[in-house]
Amino acid sequence: MDLPPYKWTATQALELLKNDTISVEAYAQSLLDRIQERGRTIKAWAYLDPDLILNQARLLDKLPAEQRGPLHGLAIGIKDIMGTKDMPTEYGSRIYDRHQPSFDSHAVATLRAAGALIFGKTTTTEFAVANYGPWTANPHDPKHTPGGSSSGSVAAVADFQVPLSLGSQTGGSVIRPASYTGVFAMKPTFGAISTEGQKPCAPSFDTIGFFARSIDDLQLLADVFGVKDDEPTTDMSLDQISVAVIKTPFWSSSGASTHNAMNISIKVLERNGIKVEDVSFPAEVSDPKVLGRIQDVIIQSEARVALLPEYRLNKARLGYEVRDIVENKSSITQKELRDAYDEYSKMRTIINDLAQKYDVILAPNAVDDAPAGLDDMGSPIFNTLWTGFHMPVINIPSSFGPWGMPVGVSLVAPRFHDQQLLQTAKAIGEILMADGIGRRRDAEGFWNTNW
Amino acid sequence: MDLPPYKWTATQALELLKNDTISVEAYAQSLLDRIQERGRTIKAWAYLDPDLILNQARLLDKLPAEQRGPLHGLAIGIKDIMGTKDMPTEYGSRIYDRHQPSFDSHAVATLRAAGALIFGKTTTTEFAVANYGPWTANPHDPKHTPGGSSSGSVAAVADFQVPLSLGSQTGGSVIRPASYTGVFAMKPTFGAISTEGQKPCAPSFDTIGFFARSIDDLQLLADVFGVKDDEPTTDMSLDQISVAVIKTPFWSSSGASTHNAMNISIKVLERNGIKVEDVSFPAEVSDPKVLGRIQDVIIQSEARVALLPEYRLNKARLGYEVRDIVENKSSITQKELRDAYDEYSKMRTIINDLAQKYDVILAPNAVDDAPAGLDDMGSPIFNTLWTGFHMPVINIPSSFGPWGMPVGVSLVAPRFHDQQLLQTAKAIGEILMADGIGRRRDAEGFWNTNW
Repeated sequence: MDLPPYKWTATQALELLKNDTISVEAYAQSLLDRIQERGRTIKAWAYLDPDLILNQARLLDKLPAEQRGPLHGLAIGIKDIMGTKDMPTEYGSRIYDRHQPSFDSHAVATLRAAGALIFGKTTTTEFAVANYGPWTANPHDPKHTPGGSSSGSVAAVADFQVPLSLGSQTGGSVIRPASYTGVFAMKPTFGAISTEGQKPCAPSFDTIGFFARSIDDLQLLADVFGVKDDEPTTDMSLDQISVAVIKTPFWSSSGASTHNAMNISIKVLERNGIKVEDVSFPAEVSDPKVLGRIQDVIIQSEARVALLPEYRLNKARLGYEVRDIVENKSSITQKELRDAYDEYSKMRTIINDLAQKYDVILAPNAVDDAPAGLDDMGSPIFNTLWTGFHMPVINIPSSFGPWGMPVGVSLVAPRFHDQQLLQTAKAIGEILMADGIGRRRDAEGFWNTNW
Repeated sequence: MDLPPYKWTATQALELLKNDTISVEAYAQSLLDRIQERGRTIKAWAYLDPDLILNQARLLDKLPAEQRGPLHGLAIGIKDIMGTKDMPTEYGSRIYDRHQPSFDSHAVATLRAAGALIFGKTTTTEFAVANYGPWTANPHDPKHTPGGSSSGSVAAVADFQVPLSLGSQTGGSVIRPASYTGVFAMKPTFGAISTEGQKPCAPSFDTIGFFARSIDDLQLLADVFGVKDDEPTTDMSLDQISVAVIKTPFWSSSGASTHNAMNISIKVLERNGIKVEDVSFPAEVSDPKVLGRIQDVIIQSEARVALLPEYRLNKARLGYEVRDIVENKSSITQKELRDAYDEYSKMRTIINDLAQKYDVILAPNAVDDAPAGLDDMGSPIFNTLWTGFHMPVINIPSSFGPWGMPVGVSLVAPRFHDQQLLQTAKAIGEILMADGIGRRRDAEGFWNTNW
């Protein structure tokens, strides 16, 4: 390949690393050069130590072939709410300045054991709870937000600084930023990957997700994390696939770019002979105010417990959103929380049962394309429901809005059908991108990187 | 008081520590002397460093009165699945030999900030998942198990080695050992206390609990952890209290001591003019096999995810129970898990709604008194349901079985009624103990410690 290594997808890089076409060190150096060039514009990294990276890379290079792991030498950025034994972990909080855990989070340990090169820590909003924090920029236009809370993870992948990164999603912190920056992302079924060693926000919503520049790359990580379905997955032919278009009860909040992305997606699917059906949520789940409040009640109540010790010990060093949550400024009662849990469990069953009738759901994944400015990080309103319903979601970077900013669509499957979702995404991902982002690809098959 | 300090309850000790009648150092020394005398018999500690304890004690003694916390100087044992920044944390696992976290778990940080003296780490079964591990003995008869998985935490409190300790309950790891050793224990509402920094087992069941030798002492900890109800609690008069006796669908598994404990409890309540009503679970929750399997499916599936990294990295150093879970020897499918989640959520709503009709539920809390030998740590069958239904439970050490081993009863309240449960336990706890353990008290009001 004539492309510079930093432009390779993980799958491409892996092959060349495995057969020693390139050393891990040389590969890492290419990424470091890219970061050297772009780092100050994008500001994706909370911690990055080139010496540590190159030392680790040389150790990986010394491994004999039979000891190399399934992610041998692949560079991966880690959201800075996940503990790393060799790098500080600051949770986007002033309280945890230079905080150094003595061991890896479970997800990081899994990647490290698989031979990945843990590259650095990516920026996050405060505790991944608040909607402010890092000054990370959107690679498509640094005057726009990349979204949050997984800001650095998504920006680093979108900007070709690493091929892979880990994020986490409690509301829409993986899928929304992926939509804003035009990369692929996956949020697996809730509970599929252990969140041990990661700062909790709302434990019944918190889900690890990952960013990449191809669906094959998402597959790589899903497999390393042991994400499995009951049924073995098979290749899908297009005329067998049934797609439910679910615009969700929040549709009236959506803007022009999201409308456009959904309309184009429906058209290209139909043009390709794929069965597309417009589906609404049943009455019990159709009131956006009720659904939104229930989710707020659960997330805020759980976050209040999660952050109580920080509040007690260091109240003055917390941002206003976190303080407001711990002080329960929304006046949430325990009775409301109990009712929310019960009601939401029922909704989860209903929507998962509905989803089982189709191969995949096509849904909006952001209110609009990335807001201008770095203060407004956008709304997770189109993501939180799938997170709370514990359903796997993949972002397909399908199109661009009128100002040239990306906006994608969500593919959603029922719980524990993650591999089926990956297969479906492989089958229809290219189609979904054909009329939008697909047109901007350069000769090598990569989308234009004029940004 | 003429009692030696190690015999004091936390509430008694707190008063004398606060007014400088005794120094924290002298108090700690009394406990250390007790441990010196009894440690080899009971084996409650996974880690205990007298120098560290006495140094911490002297630092607490130096604090001016206005800087002393609400738990000033109170010694507390910490189950060794919870991270401590100044002591190793080994999770009862050979993999984590001398493992040293760099920061406290959230629960430990909360206690430390409240001025507690973090005394040492108490033994646990392997990852608090298995039903084997420590050689901890029951203080009432060292040839009997104290139960698990919070073996050391309960034994240390029962044996007067510390007045307080933290445990955790996924099935019955707090309430059952409290029953076996004749101490008070509380498992609050699920989610009331952050489990961050604690080894997860099954995150939708994992709950922090505490052991003490009085209900006032449980109250102390509940308050420090910020456990709150919506309604302010008030003193209860006996003739207003309504008690539902729920023997649960597992009642046919119970033995003579448990029958005896329940029968005596019902009699003394009635004798005291308290309304007692026999209540059965409704049909949807009445099949013990269905209920038991659903709980197994959820707990084992979640534990499989939690322990996957340990399995991959160090399979050979895991015990057989943990290995079997990760290898899914029970052949649990994802479909079964999904159905279990949905079905169990419905049951949780039904049983909590049922519980709302009464002030408190009286329920069995162990199959029988503590099994003989240290291998069989007993069954959590009478506890797991309340844990999974997320309801707060208090163990009242009500009686003794025919061989002189303690056996208690559970008081259970609906979710988020923890303070109400504490008030009810204060109102009827003494009554419940009157015919059993109450008769064995010595002159100072403490039960006989001939063991």
